[in-house]
Amino acid sequence: MNSFTPTDRSRVKRLHERGKYDEESVFALLDAGFIAHIAYVIDGHPYVTPTSYWRTGRVLYWHGSSASRMLRRQSPGLPVCVTVSHIDGFVLARSGFHHSLNYRSVMAFGTAQIVEDPAEKSRELDRFIDRLFPGRRASLRPNNVQELKATTLIRMEIEEAAAKTRTGGPKDDDEDYALDCWAGVIPLRQVIGQPIADPKLRGGIGYPPDLAAFHDGADLCEVLAGNAEKLD
Amino acid sequence: MNSFTPTDRSRVKRLHERGKYDEESVFALLDAGFIAHIAYVIDGHPYVTPTSYWRTGRVLYWHGSSASRMLRRQSPGLPVCVTVSHIDGFVLARSGFHHSLNYRSVMAFGTAQIVEDPAEKSRELDRFIDRLFPGRRASLRPNNVQELKATTLIRMEIEEAAAKTRTGGPKDDDEDYALDCWAGVIPLRQVIGQPIADPKLRGGIGYPPDLAAFHDGADLCEVLAGNAEKLD
Repeated sequence: MNSFTPTDRSRVKRLHERGKYDEESVFALLDAGFIAHIAYVIDGHPYVTPTSYWRTGRVLYWHGSSASRMLRRQSPGLPVCVTVSHIDGFVLARSGFHHSLNYRSVMAFGTAQIVEDPAEKSRELDRFIDRLFPGRRASLRPNNVQELKATTLIRMEIEEAAAKTRTGGPKDDDEDYALDCWAGVIPLRQVIGQPIADPKLRGGIGYPPDLAAFHDGADLCEVLAGNAEKLD
Repeated sequence: MNSFTPTDRSRVKRLHERGKYDEESVFALLDAGFIAHIAYVIDGHPYVTPTSYWRTGRVLYWHGSSASRMLRRQSPGLPVCVTVSHIDGFVLARSGFHHSLNYRSVMAFGTAQIVEDPAEKSRELDRFIDRLFPGRRASLRPNNVQELKATTLIRMEIEEAAAKTRTGGPKDDDEDYALDCWAGVIPLRQVIGQPIADPKLRGGIGYPPDLAAFHDGADLCEVLAGNAEKLD
């Protein structure tokens, strides 16, 4: 099993038993999401922006961001921290102190660089669509040269990454189990709603079979994880 | 209307018409969420961690984080960027280039400091429970002195903040409307699932009326926004 090697930067310190560094755990959490929060430093100050991302092997990609101008001036690249979080539930205990959250998160570290190679750029922008909406690209007007030029693509090879998860119910102090207090887990999920057709949609175009997984009530993590399996 | 005054740090540059700086817009987005991604700099390197937060006026609070050790060595405080994002839907256009996302996000900047005042600490930890689960505190065993000591509470007065949102359908190139391609919006929401009682729950304790808003299928943003109204 391939693993990332944690240093002080990525090693899970608080509740370290919740940390994992193997590719399988890290990739599964990355592939089940599509929004990362990406942190970088400009003039010594921290910034974090939410951004759609995708993964090819150990490389994460995302579209040009507010860090792009910075990146253009800094050719060796910009150190970044990319965090992806899935919040799975509130954990309600019998004291405020023992309330908690169930979650799955990944912190990945690396150096962001602008992709200059047109072939990599074109291939990866296609992959971005394919990983979200498999089969959809066949019905789209392909990217043209101006669009490829206008898009800044950023890549970051994952140098270190840690996955951290919490599951299960509350853990209370022994004497608190006697309290007259409801305790348990209130689950949370990100779900898909009823698709809304563009009012300008041409007559006769129905909801396409390649979007069938995106139906009202579907679990987003499951849909994305299923898409990732089709890619690899 | 009170507003934050943007500088280069918070001013929305890309698609600036999507940016708002008034307290009402910023606070509404903060109050409809409970997980922030908090970025800070240690030894010149960026870090971002997902954390539960709450708001009292222009101050954001959260529990001790991996930045705490750093903070203890740096008494004037640590510059941080706090980002809260709600992802509302995929926007499917007729070309890859025009695909987009509907979202509501806030970036807030300030200086993180450890709360040392026991009264503020006790009051705010209570508020954390009250803003999530109004009425619940009456049934909990109150915090004890050791727990208050063991909890690091962090405060950040918002110095600058920007809200940024996108809503609505795809905007395609004129000639692409003729394509045989489905386009529209696939909504996304964070919803509550069926509550799971702790297996160690004492007999006779039912799901309490004060958690009634947390029912299967409820929209998390709406529940949290409703809770915030009860607080103010």
